[in-house]
Amino acid sequence: MKTSQRILLTALTLFNRHGENGVTSVDIAMELDISPGNLYYHFKGKESMVSALMRMHEKQMQRVLVPNALDSLTAEEVMYYLYLLVDSLHVFRFFYRSPADIVEKYPLIEKPRKNILSSLHKQLSQLLTTLSHKKVLVASPSDLTLLADLLSLIITQSCQFDETNSHMDETSQRYHALSLMMVSLLPRLILSEAQQNSILEALHSHALANVTEHVPQDMFNTKE
Amino acid sequence: MKTSQRILLTALTLFNRHGENGVTSVDIAMELDISPGNLYYHFKGKESMVSALMRMHEKQMQRVLVPNALDSLTAEEVMYYLYLLVDSLHVFRFFYRSPADIVEKYPLIEKPRKNILSSLHKQLSQLLTTLSHKKVLVASPSDLTLLADLLSLIITQSCQFDETNSHMDETSQRYHALSLMMVSLLPRLILSEAQQNSILEALHSHALANVTEHVPQDMFNTKE
Repeated sequence: MKTSQRILLTALTLFNRHGENGVTSVDIAMELDISPGNLYYHFKGKESMVSALMRMHEKQMQRVLVPNALDSLTAEEVMYYLYLLVDSLHVFRFFYRSPADIVEKYPLIEKPRKNILSSLHKQLSQLLTTLSHKKVLVASPSDLTLLADLLSLIITQSCQFDETNSHMDETSQRYHALSLMMVSLLPRLILSEAQQNSILEALHSHALANVTEHVPQDMFNTKE
Repeated sequence: MKTSQRILLTALTLFNRHGENGVTSVDIAMELDISPGNLYYHFKGKESMVSALMRMHEKQMQRVLVPNALDSLTAEEVMYYLYLLVDSLHVFRFFYRSPADIVEKYPLIEKPRKNILSSLHKQLSQLLTTLSHKKVLVASPSDLTLLADLLSLIITQSCQFDETNSHMDETSQRYHALSLMMVSLLPRLILSEAQQNSILEALHSHALANVTEHVPQDMFNTKE
């Protein structure tokens, strides 16, 4: 792996663990066992690392938020897809930890962040509308908008909420996010008893592992 | 009003408007048209103001989170009560803007903040359990826990989410929070058509004004 890729991966790990505020460039250099001068050669300060990570996050989300994949999803696959969204966002969760502060500190990330959130919302709206057209989901048009808002809120904020307020590990946080979404959706979904049981069973046993890939190596091939 | 009370009220207004990070002691003194020295006489820096505001917030929430009031609430009154909770928290919304960062910056507020959140969660659990016992709400025991988590998340995080992502005014943010809660609860509530319509109508027309009092004057009688 190239040094610039190793730097970004380490920065991401440390930012997620301690918050962006709690990590300095020197911490990142020390963790990598390189000199601050060498780090500076690749990235001129934290801002350029944060921007590079946001570009990676934007690319990653573009690959997950593909509209034409939604039509054929069954109710169970919808749950898998929602998990994939939580999981994808969770890889870059430091961006969602103190959302107002980080955008004020790095105005450059505001636009890509807005793009991600509006694509996410659009995708969720389309997903819910498709389910409603297929008569799998019972919801009025205004319910559909609110449900898309609610799912966006849960996907982007529940991990941060759990981290501040409880001591869940990362996997439990993701399943908690998924369970919060499903507790809102299930009473509106028209499912057979078998389907309902299989969904509840998967949620209960945390049995969605391996559905998703984490950040793949090729995403780190960003030139700096 | 005493100077120390005026200082706290002004600090609260500015923190809510710009975030705690975006406001200095000097900004607060200037807004009040007093000297920084006079401000310092009352509060030794922002930390003591933030702590005093957290104590006020804790007191305010204790008055709203009264368990014995829950038994007699009808489904409609439950909605009013949820609005009251959103409204109460919203008065001190800067604490929920960048939740992780503010607690790290002011470790003193961590304990009262935890107390507020655990009282809130306990109250919501009890509210939902009562409704379930009265057969007004359809939910399994694990649904009840998840719904209490979900309502806590919406009450504490939706305003911040709306502020960062859209341009709603404060009133719209509160109704949005309430609508997000109701879109999750309504399919589980056993209501007559008349009750359901009156709830939807109240949500739609933002007709819950004057249910709640904002921070009353006597809360500012904190001695510093």
